[in-house]
Amino acid sequence: MTDVTNARIGEVMPGKPLSREETKAITRRRLIEAALKLADAGGGRSFTASEVAREAGVAQPTFYVHFRDRDDLLKALGESQIDELRQELARARAAIDLEAMAGGHPDEALREAFRLSVTAMLEHPMLFRVYVRERTHSDSPLARHCRGIADALREDLVTDLRTLDEHLSRDRSDAERTMLADAIGAFTEALGLGHLDGRYDDLEEIIDVLARFTRSALA
Amino acid sequence: MTDVTNARIGEVMPGKPLSREETKAITRRRLIEAALKLADAGGGRSFTASEVAREAGVAQPTFYVHFRDRDDLLKALGESQIDELRQELARARAAIDLEAMAGGHPDEALREAFRLSVTAMLEHPMLFRVYVRERTHSDSPLARHCRGIADALREDLVTDLRTLDEHLSRDRSDAERTMLADAIGAFTEALGLGHLDGRYDDLEEIIDVLARFTRSALA
Repeated sequence: MTDVTNARIGEVMPGKPLSREETKAITRRRLIEAALKLADAGGGRSFTASEVAREAGVAQPTFYVHFRDRDDLLKALGESQIDELRQELARARAAIDLEAMAGGHPDEALREAFRLSVTAMLEHPMLFRVYVRERTHSDSPLARHCRGIADALREDLVTDLRTLDEHLSRDRSDAERTMLADAIGAFTEALGLGHLDGRYDDLEEIIDVLARFTRSALA
Repeated sequence: MTDVTNARIGEVMPGKPLSREETKAITRRRLIEAALKLADAGGGRSFTASEVAREAGVAQPTFYVHFRDRDDLLKALGESQIDELRQELARARAAIDLEAMAGGHPDEALREAFRLSVTAMLEHPMLFRVYVRERTHSDSPLARHCRGIADALREDLVTDLRTLDEHLSRDRSDAERTMLADAIGAFTEALGLGHLDGRYDDLEEIIDVLARFTRSALA
């Protein structure tokens, strides 16, 4: 998606020496960027710590100054991507016309929210697969982290559903809202995976099915 | 669910000695039964080959006469459960009133199909979690097997959707039917997992959400 580096050495005023903290932050961001590049370039393939160090142009021991292991880097990488996606999704969903939604009418803003989700999955297939796979593992820091992401995304959706229901003065339990959020999250992911696995190609058709499904279910 | 043993030693006519093949089949079924018992008793915990042998009352080397390893037994166990579930689901879905479905009306047969799916997941949580988890792995015989199960369940659903569309003279691409099948499968699983993870309790409320979602999306 976008560059995870907010500060680059070249952008720092010449003549002003970098502090130790600044240098460290830059190296860390370079490692995350290198990992993202490798993740996206490698098809579904993962990467090793030494590949990331090489790609970032740092010595391998430097990798371990910043990250405990490859999973630790994957966590940081997921965080950098998911934080941005959550903000984009929040903006896209805030633009959804609740009246149109309530009436079951087409709404480009709803499509845009799904487009953002699916595009994020398809742009970073390796990260997406890691997220889906690791979440189901019973115990590892990365698994807990992935479940944390799922919890956050679900909570965002539950909050939106509560707003929709309040707007419509509709009585719905939080349990049911949680189910709907789980369902919407699950079929969005399923169609992203289905596309990656080659079962259907047309991205706009996928978005259409997702939006129609959601609209009619919530109308 | 039901007993996987179709032939038990006690049911064989007395006096007629068991053939070598019969004895082998019985031992194999005993091992599968023992594994199912351990799987269901152990919460989310898996089991080892020697635990299964002990539970089945056979020597550990006997285990390896029948199964290559624990994953191989899990495959056989999944098969024994999924074949039965597919038949039950096919019967339940054949009973769905297509007119009612088309009109978006409540249909107890549709609820019953979802009840069967969710109940199967909740009755065998360990098997269900293995199925979800292994499917996402890139390569192992068990992973391929689990993806094969997912393919078969999807194909059943696509066939049913084709029947529904023909009944309604509705034009829908097979790509879209595949998406709908993926979506329905995904949110059914998601709500099963959500229940197992303790996010919502009421099974009938879950079935209600699943049926409503599907009905309004397909109507």
